[in-house]
Amino acid sequence: MAKKAGVLGATGSVGQRFILLLSKHPEFEIHALGASSRSAGKSYKDAVSWKQTDILPESAQNVVVQTCEPEDKFKECDIVFSGLDSDVAGEVEKKFVEAGLAVVSNAKNYRREKDVPLVVPIVNPEHLDIIENKVKKSKAEGKKTGYLICISNCSTAGLVAPLKPLVEKFGPIDALTATTLQAISGAGFSPGVSGMDILDNIVPYISGEEDKLEWETKKILGLLNKEGTEVVNIPEEDMKVSAQCNRVPVIDGHTECISLRFAKRPPPSVEDVKNVLREYVCDAAKLGCHSAPKQTIHVLEQEDRPQPRLDRERDNGYGVSVGTIREDSLLDFKMVVLSHNTVIGAAGSGILIAEILNAKGLI
Amino acid sequence: MAKKAGVLGATGSVGQRFILLLSKHPEFEIHALGASSRSAGKSYKDAVSWKQTDILPESAQNVVVQTCEPEDKFKECDIVFSGLDSDVAGEVEKKFVEAGLAVVSNAKNYRREKDVPLVVPIVNPEHLDIIENKVKKSKAEGKKTGYLICISNCSTAGLVAPLKPLVEKFGPIDALTATTLQAISGAGFSPGVSGMDILDNIVPYISGEEDKLEWETKKILGLLNKEGTEVVNIPEEDMKVSAQCNRVPVIDGHTECISLRFAKRPPPSVEDVKNVLREYVCDAAKLGCHSAPKQTIHVLEQEDRPQPRLDRERDNGYGVSVGTIREDSLLDFKMVVLSHNTVIGAAGSGILIAEILNAKGLI
Amino acid sequence: MAKKAGVLGATGSVGQRFILLLSKHPEFEIHALGASSRSAGKSYKDAVSWKQTDILPESAQNVVVQTCEPEDKFKECDIVFSGLDSDVAGEVEKKFVEAGLAVVSNAKNYRREKDVPLVVPIVNPEHLDIIENKVKKSKAEGKKTGYLICISNCSTAGLVAPLKPLVEKFGPIDALTATTLQAISGAGFSPGVSGMDILDNIVPYISGEEDKLEWETKKILGLLNKEGTEVVNIPEEDMKVSAQCNRVPVIDGHTECISLRFAKRPPPSVEDVKNVLREYVCDAAKLGCHSAPKQTIHVLEQEDRPQPRLDRERDNGYGVSVGTIREDSLLDFKMVVLSHNTVIGAAGSGILIAEILNAKGLI
Amino acid sequence: MAKKAGVLGATGSVGQRFILLLSKHPEFEIHALGASSRSAGKSYKDAVSWKQTDILPESAQNVVVQTCEPEDKFKECDIVFSGLDSDVAGEVEKKFVEAGLAVVSNAKNYRREKDVPLVVPIVNPEHLDIIENKVKKSKAEGKKTGYLICISNCSTAGLVAPLKPLVEKFGPIDALTATTLQAISGAGFSPGVSGMDILDNIVPYISGEEDKLEWETKKILGLLNKEGTEVVNIPEEDMKVSAQCNRVPVIDGHTECISLRFAKRPPPSVEDVKNVLREYVCDAAKLGCHSAPKQTIHVLEQEDRPQPRLDRERDNGYGVSVGTIREDSLLDFKMVVLSHNTVIGAAGSGILIAEILNAKGLI
Repeated sequence: MAKKAGVLGATGSVGQRFILLLSKHPEFEIHALGASSRSAGKSYKDAVSWKQTDILPESAQNVVVQTCEPEDKFKECDIVFSGLDSDVAGEVEKKFVEAGLAVVSNAKNYRREKDVPLVVPIVNPEHLDIIENKVKKSKAEGKKTGYLICISNCSTAGLVAPLKPLVEKFGPIDALTATTLQAISGAGFSPGVSGMDILDNIVPYISGEEDKLEWETKKILGLLNKEGTEVVNIPEEDMKVSAQCNRVPVIDGHTECISLRFAKRPPPSVEDVKNVLREYVCDAAKLGCHSAPKQTIHVLEQEDRPQPRLDRERDNGYGVSVGTIREDSLLDFKMVVLSHNTVIGAAGSGILIAEILNAKGLI
Repeated sequence: MAKKAGVLGATGSVGQRFILLLSKHPEFEIHALGASSRSAGKSYKDAVSWKQTDILPESAQNVVVQTCEPEDKFKECDIVFSGLDSDVAGEVEKKFVEAGLAVVSNAKNYRREKDVPLVVPIVNPEHLDIIENKVKKSKAEGKKTGYLICISNCSTAGLVAPLKPLVEKFGPIDALTATTLQAISGAGFSPGVSGMDILDNIVPYISGEEDKLEWETKKILGLLNKEGTEVVNIPEEDMKVSAQCNRVPVIDGHTECISLRFAKRPPPSVEDVKNVLREYVCDAAKLGCHSAPKQTIHVLEQEDRPQPRLDRERDNGYGVSVGTIREDSLLDFKMVVLSHNTVIGAAGSGILIAEILNAKGLI
Repeated sequence: MAKKAGVLGATGSVGQRFILLLSKHPEFEIHALGASSRSAGKSYKDAVSWKQTDILPESAQNVVVQTCEPEDKFKECDIVFSGLDSDVAGEVEKKFVEAGLAVVSNAKNYRREKDVPLVVPIVNPEHLDIIENKVKKSKAEGKKTGYLICISNCSTAGLVAPLKPLVEKFGPIDALTATTLQAISGAGFSPGVSGMDILDNIVPYISGEEDKLEWETKKILGLLNKEGTEVVNIPEEDMKVSAQCNRVPVIDGHTECISLRFAKRPPPSVEDVKNVLREYVCDAAKLGCHSAPKQTIHVLEQEDRPQPRLDRERDNGYGVSVGTIREDSLLDFKMVVLSHNTVIGAAGSGILIAEILNAKGLI
Repeated sequence: MAKKAGVLGATGSVGQRFILLLSKHPEFEIHALGASSRSAGKSYKDAVSWKQTDILPESAQNVVVQTCEPEDKFKECDIVFSGLDSDVAGEVEKKFVEAGLAVVSNAKNYRREKDVPLVVPIVNPEHLDIIENKVKKSKAEGKKTGYLICISNCSTAGLVAPLKPLVEKFGPIDALTATTLQAISGAGFSPGVSGMDILDNIVPYISGEEDKLEWETKKILGLLNKEGTEVVNIPEEDMKVSAQCNRVPVIDGHTECISLRFAKRPPPSVEDVKNVLREYVCDAAKLGCHSAPKQTIHVLEQEDRPQPRLDRERDNGYGVSVGTIREDSLLDFKMVVLSHNTVIGAAGSGILIAEILNAKGLI
């Protein structure tokens, strides 16, 4: 039977993406939609200014929007996806978890909490063990527990995808640079990035983005503590990460020019690196999750790829493309990573996390 | 009296820019225009498919185009600017120099010759001493000599502008990374970059560009040998340069995200760096050259600048903008550099080089 | 059993679209691929510079490309799709038809031949009766006949879609204006429209386009002669068509601002017009063709729609969107029509025409 | 001596353009800047988020912003330019006029008042006779009068430029269609048009625009009443105007595809039309106004022109370009008109109106 799904911030751009993905999903059904009090009480189709390239799904059109309180339909949800803005997400999500609900959030508010897994589902689903342990413990105590899982920042998601298998195979990366060329869809659309700012232009600044990318990478690649209750970040001194973030005139798809150095000498060869990336099968795929990419990482051999317009839709946006892998004169390797920022970098990851939770019986 | 100027490759995009700049120039007049045999014999206005935002200057309209041989009008030129494609530039420019002409070329063919100065006029005009020495020597021998000066690659020009005053003040830079977001005008317009490749897209590849940027930087920042006849590049092992080059949907203006490390410890402060950049006055300005920027480097303090559309025209495209100067977790500093690729990165540099030559009595 | 399909001009942009659509098609299989002698002998994946957002289908990768002669694999084809450029299409297609093959062509060469149906499959499949009659006659004579069907110009396809049901219901349209805002994908990609021509720009000219749009509309809306062997265009004096064609910075999707006047007075109401458009079911849909749109014409009620990025993919690009239908102060009505230029305006129409032929037993 | 100029709405996009034009103007000096109470009391450079491609002029940087009341510095102004949004312009401008000030406004609020001239300075400066008459009358009465002049809508300004000389020469136009492709700069930048709405897209709707274009054309081409106190619009039944307005991904420059019919039969020839346009010299040029275009209308002969990126800057944006003039199958002629929407379509027109007033001794 389909799991009941709720969406917080349902009228926003991330919320709309959640709804689109849920509407076609075999395991979930849209059960509750939450937005501001301005929208509450209206049918979703009247509350939303729908801006997706797919039409507004029928299954969502007539759902009556409620406020973002853990009441009514939300109380019946097996899983709640949050597309809330960070200025309200903090309080709302806290209430939902305290009310015993399972929340997967795209907001940044709790990403740095040690006991909140920050998960890119094709990279570190093992961090969900924190949740598994928590749920087991509660069950043992005869209680039901709410919990929160955070989706990573969009530019972090693409970056860590190739890093994970490389670290698994070749050991720690001790230096990493990433210059991003980020699509505008991540900024939403009301107003999002202004046309005057982005036509025939580049904006070499995204508020807070460089810090997020540098910090989150070290959490996502970190390990759990012995008790399986917290994530231990890779220490600052073990891994230098340097990011420069830019907004570019691209609708969807973040391109990242990265270079990296392995701690171990001598480093592997370019061919070794390519092979490891090609052979990587993410756990979500092994679990047979519906949205898991068939090919987690696409290693492209053409010298001018990946390109966002041509490559962002691989594996429905759940696959990450890596190209122009070559030796670097400063660190060991440089390469270009492309990921779909609204799929693996946002709502799509939320859905795949929920699929993993479902496969593991955690919702 | 105005110096007679010739333009090789006059119908191409670089040639058109030379003509535009010359048509308004107080020191030069358009005297000879060279193009392929298909165009030869036609008036310029009939030969060219003019694609500039300024209208075709009257002073060029009726000049009869000749072939690219050091004959006729070209023989009377004081200075010849070459906007030729590299597939023909090699042979033509050689002939012109052998015929005793002074040539300033935008082509890449001879950039790596040790006795050919590779000059960004706001950065290393002192490399023109090679020419001065050569001319003096010839004069002493009672002869007239031709010579060649190369304009640097467009993405190199912007990069080295802030590096020069920093190295002068704080000593050698031993590590440098640069990820470029390059405008399409540099690729010309027939066909140049295809619209299908660049609308809603990024191309993470420009043929040969990374190598040029890495190599040329070490020549431009190098010193002359004792005899003043050759440039000695900074040795590979003293300065690691790592470049990643991208084409982006911007008409004019190359944005470069760079990071760098000084050899000397401890490094200067961010404020030190800003001050040195702000106070830098290029030699061309000191010489009073017509096109020299009033402010060579604009240090922008807004966190989201420089931006190509807003900042590329500073000092008519001869000024370079640098922003978001901040400490880097891997190297010492990171910053964003913006330069106008068709001005300081191409034809404009050629004109300013000629102004310096003129100021020094070398043409 | 799948019908054997050939593609002429297989490496070009239209050819690539044919291959993509065929590779996923239940009724056709890729059997022969033809290109220039430069590509002949190579496997398709080596011959093509693939530029589609979907990856190169496996079923095409290893097909050995042959020249565009009605030989070898082409002779075994049930249907041949031509994506050839008009400079070679004329002769090649003639040879193929003379060799007894069924050809559906995207080229303009034979569109104005009276006995060649010019078909937008959601609009005038009844013009295929010419083919049916020809085939029957040949069969009766114990012979096999080749034939040619032309796909309309891309901007014509979108325009005539709403006109057809309106004319059927309200009688002749005697005046029509159409100003087009056409996507660049229609111009191909090597080089197609130059980036310098289309970034931050509009080009108010597409060679031959206005004439095509004005002429083809009168053929597509015309009737067959009594014998069912030729199309009789609507006479010039009965229907004035005035077109102005522009290229705009959009990847896919032609937007057309049209206004029209019915010959009959009084004209219908806006609501009448909307209802007729909404209720229109094209014959291809009635025949149950695989690619036929579920909703032939989408009447959009939001005042700012249709928009190419949001609406071009409706019914996989086979549906046409019409919006802002309102009274006009000069003619009767104005409205905005959006159609997908590479689907219903090119290769996609070719495939749907073949589906109709197949449904009617004509291949 | 320079006239003292004030700017209302000084921090907005139109206000910024006024300031830029005034800062370089020989006849005016920036004297008063007005904005919301949030900005009042700050120096302009601290109050504004400057978004122009020219840097913030020194003469404006330290002007202390005041509220939009006819007090303090504003009272000393010879002329006040209003770049206010229409939601506040109505009341503020009324107060300023009542306080005896001369106001030139870009807002739409009073454009339809019969005694308020709606002026495109290269088209109908004769409507300023209303002001002249008013000022004379007041002077005769020993009083000083305030007055208001409205700048037309941006898309109207370009449209009427070629119409004026045509009507003067060939008599009334009785039918006119205009489909516009409008740049985004007209919508301002906070937020203006969203990047998600305009990248790889067209928006076939601009609120109120079609109605403005249809109505204003008939006022601007109208005559004054006998008393010279009011404008009499061309009657609806004498001139049918039909507009369709679109927003396109262009920074500056409105392209308009128009067709028109003269009332008189037979119509002139294409060459007649071109000649009249070429020979048109606007009154502002005859008066020797500083900003008046040298060539009011540029008739372009290349078949693919005008184009916004290449032609918008002609005569510093005060010249209008017209191309592809050809016969029309429905009306008499079709052509493409390009005008710079922030110059002749907004602030620039305001400045040129003020120059005319100054030349006539009305300020």
